[in-house]
Amino acid sequence: METMYAIVKTQPKVGAEYTTHPLPQIADNEVLVKVKSTSICGSDLHLYNWDAWSASRVQVPRIMGHELAGEVVELGREVTAVAVGDFVSTETHIHCGYCSACRHGFPEVCMDLKILGFQRNGVFAQYISLPQDVIWKNHPSFPREWASIQEPMGNAVDTVLAEDVAGKTVLVTGCGPVGLLTIAVARAAGATTIFASDVNEYRLNLALKLGATVILNPEKVNLVEYILDATHGDGVEVLLEISGNVSALTDGLRVVMHGGRVSLLGLFKDGKVPVNLNDEIVMKGVRIYGVTGRKIFATWYKTSQLLSSGRINLDPIITHKFPMAEFEKGIQLMSEGMCGKIMLLPPQ
Amino acid sequence: METMYAIVKTQPKVGAEYTTHPLPQIADNEVLVKVKSTSICGSDLHLYNWDAWSASRVQVPRIMGHELAGEVVELGREVTAVAVGDFVSTETHIHCGYCSACRHGFPEVCMDLKILGFQRNGVFAQYISLPQDVIWKNHPSFPREWASIQEPMGNAVDTVLAEDVAGKTVLVTGCGPVGLLTIAVARAAGATTIFASDVNEYRLNLALKLGATVILNPEKVNLVEYILDATHGDGVEVLLEISGNVSALTDGLRVVMHGGRVSLLGLFKDGKVPVNLNDEIVMKGVRIYGVTGRKIFATWYKTSQLLSSGRINLDPIITHKFPMAEFEKGIQLMSEGMCGKIMLLPPQ
Amino acid sequence: METMYAIVKTQPKVGAEYTTHPLPQIADNEVLVKVKSTSICGSDLHLYNWDAWSASRVQVPRIMGHELAGEVVELGREVTAVAVGDFVSTETHIHCGYCSACRHGFPEVCMDLKILGFQRNGVFAQYISLPQDVIWKNHPSFPREWASIQEPMGNAVDTVLAEDVAGKTVLVTGCGPVGLLTIAVARAAGATTIFASDVNEYRLNLALKLGATVILNPEKVNLVEYILDATHGDGVEVLLEISGNVSALTDGLRVVMHGGRVSLLGLFKDGKVPVNLNDEIVMKGVRIYGVTGRKIFATWYKTSQLLSSGRINLDPIITHKFPMAEFEKGIQLMSEGMCGKIMLLPPQ
Amino acid sequence: METMYAIVKTQPKVGAEYTTHPLPQIADNEVLVKVKSTSICGSDLHLYNWDAWSASRVQVPRIMGHELAGEVVELGREVTAVAVGDFVSTETHIHCGYCSACRHGFPEVCMDLKILGFQRNGVFAQYISLPQDVIWKNHPSFPREWASIQEPMGNAVDTVLAEDVAGKTVLVTGCGPVGLLTIAVARAAGATTIFASDVNEYRLNLALKLGATVILNPEKVNLVEYILDATHGDGVEVLLEISGNVSALTDGLRVVMHGGRVSLLGLFKDGKVPVNLNDEIVMKGVRIYGVTGRKIFATWYKTSQLLSSGRINLDPIITHKFPMAEFEKGIQLMSEGMCGKIMLLPPQ
Repeated sequence: METMYAIVKTQPKVGAEYTTHPLPQIADNEVLVKVKSTSICGSDLHLYNWDAWSASRVQVPRIMGHELAGEVVELGREVTAVAVGDFVSTETHIHCGYCSACRHGFPEVCMDLKILGFQRNGVFAQYISLPQDVIWKNHPSFPREWASIQEPMGNAVDTVLAEDVAGKTVLVTGCGPVGLLTIAVARAAGATTIFASDVNEYRLNLALKLGATVILNPEKVNLVEYILDATHGDGVEVLLEISGNVSALTDGLRVVMHGGRVSLLGLFKDGKVPVNLNDEIVMKGVRIYGVTGRKIFATWYKTSQLLSSGRINLDPIITHKFPMAEFEKGIQLMSEGMCGKIMLLPPQ
Repeated sequence: METMYAIVKTQPKVGAEYTTHPLPQIADNEVLVKVKSTSICGSDLHLYNWDAWSASRVQVPRIMGHELAGEVVELGREVTAVAVGDFVSTETHIHCGYCSACRHGFPEVCMDLKILGFQRNGVFAQYISLPQDVIWKNHPSFPREWASIQEPMGNAVDTVLAEDVAGKTVLVTGCGPVGLLTIAVARAAGATTIFASDVNEYRLNLALKLGATVILNPEKVNLVEYILDATHGDGVEVLLEISGNVSALTDGLRVVMHGGRVSLLGLFKDGKVPVNLNDEIVMKGVRIYGVTGRKIFATWYKTSQLLSSGRINLDPIITHKFPMAEFEKGIQLMSEGMCGKIMLLPPQ
Repeated sequence: METMYAIVKTQPKVGAEYTTHPLPQIADNEVLVKVKSTSICGSDLHLYNWDAWSASRVQVPRIMGHELAGEVVELGREVTAVAVGDFVSTETHIHCGYCSACRHGFPEVCMDLKILGFQRNGVFAQYISLPQDVIWKNHPSFPREWASIQEPMGNAVDTVLAEDVAGKTVLVTGCGPVGLLTIAVARAAGATTIFASDVNEYRLNLALKLGATVILNPEKVNLVEYILDATHGDGVEVLLEISGNVSALTDGLRVVMHGGRVSLLGLFKDGKVPVNLNDEIVMKGVRIYGVTGRKIFATWYKTSQLLSSGRINLDPIITHKFPMAEFEKGIQLMSEGMCGKIMLLPPQ
Repeated sequence: METMYAIVKTQPKVGAEYTTHPLPQIADNEVLVKVKSTSICGSDLHLYNWDAWSASRVQVPRIMGHELAGEVVELGREVTAVAVGDFVSTETHIHCGYCSACRHGFPEVCMDLKILGFQRNGVFAQYISLPQDVIWKNHPSFPREWASIQEPMGNAVDTVLAEDVAGKTVLVTGCGPVGLLTIAVARAAGATTIFASDVNEYRLNLALKLGATVILNPEKVNLVEYILDATHGDGVEVLLEISGNVSALTDGLRVVMHGGRVSLLGLFKDGKVPVNLNDEIVMKGVRIYGVTGRKIFATWYKTSQLLSSGRINLDPIITHKFPMAEFEKGIQLMSEGMCGKIMLLPPQ
């Protein structure tokens, strides 16, 4: 077999194709992985839509996708850390290891980052070649369906655990797939009251299933008043901003307690966001953490253990599964926000 | 009423008496609390037994006890933060506020600490006077039976949360009442595998109920081998030492992972403990936290919220209740280790 | 003596008066302090100018000022922590001790804060009454002239030390008095390259004296290009924003390294500041600390020790001294930015 | 040239030889470095003496040494991060990158560590082959003499900066070369009072030159009484233990303040050290950090910048220089403790 099926961004415009593509070659320090299952990320939707962010980062043709579960089928001759037959997932941020960020201990914000499915061919395919350095080995008993979701869940883990949340009140703004994962992690990590906000009722219902204690639709209720009232005027100790929505951030900051903490994961449509720095950050002594990517691999350990121990159940978040050939259905559902996590399965 | 019933250490020797005692007076910044329920701490047993530690700290006569749930019945004239009728518990470390430790932000290790039931009359009585500064107000709906247990649970909270535990493997050595609380907190805060060790099978069974995932009796199994095997040679990321037992500490340190963390809460019979600093601390890059008391009141918020949210259920840990007059039964059970937490109830 | 001289905000409009005022009375837990020297803060200028921020916070008449060195001359009957003759300064944030922020360990952002010279009579006077809880005792040998400056220097200490700076590159935006103190603290705490920016050449020259290694006037040089060039494209590890100027913040964030840290102390004219959250915070994994006030008193220890040990020399920052009666001269210089720290001395 | 001169541990007994050795070969990802200067570490002395610790770790023959300054003269064909002519030093802990410690973010305590001069040939030679991953590039203007000392100074940096020290009182126990570096780093990082203890007057005098503010010989003065007296009974906020001496540790722990911090770097003759855990760690709420190796490379940035900025001057610590052929002189001085840092220079 010299070709395989893959979802390829073939043109610099909206859309993508399920088509044949040459089988990847592996370098000495790489492994060939047979893809077992994948899942769709919001950033795949951006790439599909060829928005400004994607257009400035990606050259076509490019195989899309980066959330992976697969099996190692071939090893480069220098590979020592992985074996044929290993059940693996992958870190999708391929860091250089030599830039100033990497060497300061922040590989997740490497200054020369290559991201699977963006600057390097991705996982929406039958096979993928990967450097052994980014391979994460799953225990053979690890739930097959959950393996690819460890990658986005890692973002949720770092968002939640920038500081501890045990015994604390939390607001999660945004209940898309990563917001739902964030709720699940906050719950597992001991957050007590978890307010979750979104304008999409479908997602708010999923939020309840994942562990939110109070769901709030800001189109129907005054979020600031509600939370201040529910917390006797104190507000929440922790804000986890996943929506990338300016009003969500503005409201969220207003209800962060004096001395509270904020994690920002969501990306905003227009990067320049008006923030009331005086009243909400400086005068309240608030701490903010920008979160992108995962601590490689400290975050993977936590994520993997939260799942394999059964502390977090991902079943409620997996709302749809499609053969890779029908990926357009997933893209459509993602656009409408009528889904949790969507799995794409390549032909075996 | 000018006298009340109380458990009083009347003599500088083994024992204590349930007897009458003058009703406490309150100063301008104090409140009078009618005691509703109390619970016994291991340190009460030390005082009862008049061991060297107690004898060097306490002057008789002294009303014993420090874990409290009660109702405010009278206010000093400068009291503003508490009202008659409030359902309250109390921080038992009365810090001076002016010493170097207090002013560095460590009131829990105040250099002039007065502890209820030791350097100041305690809660095993019908009434107690308390400075408003140490009063913790419980929400009226807070579970009555659990209110006094917030104090020792606060120790467990600080022991567990010296660093976060979410997604991590933990070993708790010692399953007495505080060990059990530690297990419950670790579980609620997201620890995944929780090994718990004790030589007492009764307590190990309670450990399972509180959330331990593996129980180990070091008299029956080689703890070091077992844990290294179960963790593929890595060991545990976190050791929480509650037992005050030298072999438990020694074994525990041996299985702490490279780069791991240790919290020490247990007090050792002979203070001078041999520790393999080279191999277990320095060469493994381990961090150790000595824990005593609670962060006043940051810890109380976490504790209270973990309980009121239902994240932690204390019912399994409350194994016995006695009228205060029958306190000797509790002392006896504590001595034998055949109990979880024991409640003592004063006449109402 | 039943009256004293003081600088009083007598009218709700621009200006203030040097006039007589009744001598303060002390409560049981308060002390009377004879004022020896004071210094002017930027916030005093706001109050003098009766801007919106001041008008919303202050009721006239009000004695102004909050940076103090003085001598205790009388004690309330419950005072135990201070003695007549003590050489003292004062924390100016009088926190309630009972609100949620105080009890979470954040008294510096108390939800019911009373600030000297704003919500309570201040130190621009011959005498002031102060609760013993906020008194800081200086060692008798502590440099007299520097004692009042510990208060604003405490802000600089917390701004710099939100995380450590030893061996790191730092940018300080804004070289007014607090900016200058920030530079001095960063230098003493081991920052290696310290870029300092301001549009005022007088202040930039002071910045050099206080320890800046590179001074940059953004009206004359492209700060972003300069710093990226000087750091081989990496940028600075730490941004300390003191100016409250939007372009300074924008430029500063652009040159913060991936994985870097920001402290925000400056207050912005218009609270709503446009911030490029995507590129500068989220995608770079940056941490931000809002800083206001001081950790009471952990910060005072550090501040006091940095000064008494001679690690920091405040002489270059004290550019002017006036009798209190001539306070308008100080206000004028502050408005023009042609000063470091200005001392005001009451009649003795 | 096919052979070179090197200091080789040739026999499993006391001693070493300056002799010829085949020139090292480089693998694809390695570089060949011409050694310009090296310095002797205490661990080299252990290896020379073939003590139990060394005998259990090293197989002869082995080229000794690990503190390096050199020039890259040849590149393996996959090397991209380094160029011929680069002025380099080297991290000496060659971590595997795949073990649990490495992947948790603790490569400095890698479970499969190879240390230069111990498990792999070292730098006391004319040439050495090194993986590009451990190469640290010095700026061409970096002081030549100081380059090899960055490695042990990195240990001092991590020892000091486990938590910040700015504005704090510190005790450094042990004034050998690493102790002296620790003093210099503590001083540069803003420690105010620095007590330094040793029984060797020669070293105490060096300690003063490096920045200690008080030197104490525990054979002549009661260290505990002296420090408690000098700190008004508070003790020191930070203990940095470098000596590996049990009494130094015992005394040091006694004077650590309530709520204070300890870093342990020194290795103890007999690993099992009696520690008063109850009184000195638990009841005082003390935090302890085991330190070994360096955070790779976050520590190198700090170290390099502290030196290149001139914040720390290493000249006083370099007390001797010898041609490599005369290494026995250096070994002798180290044994007697009559030296700071000793340089060994290979024939050029």
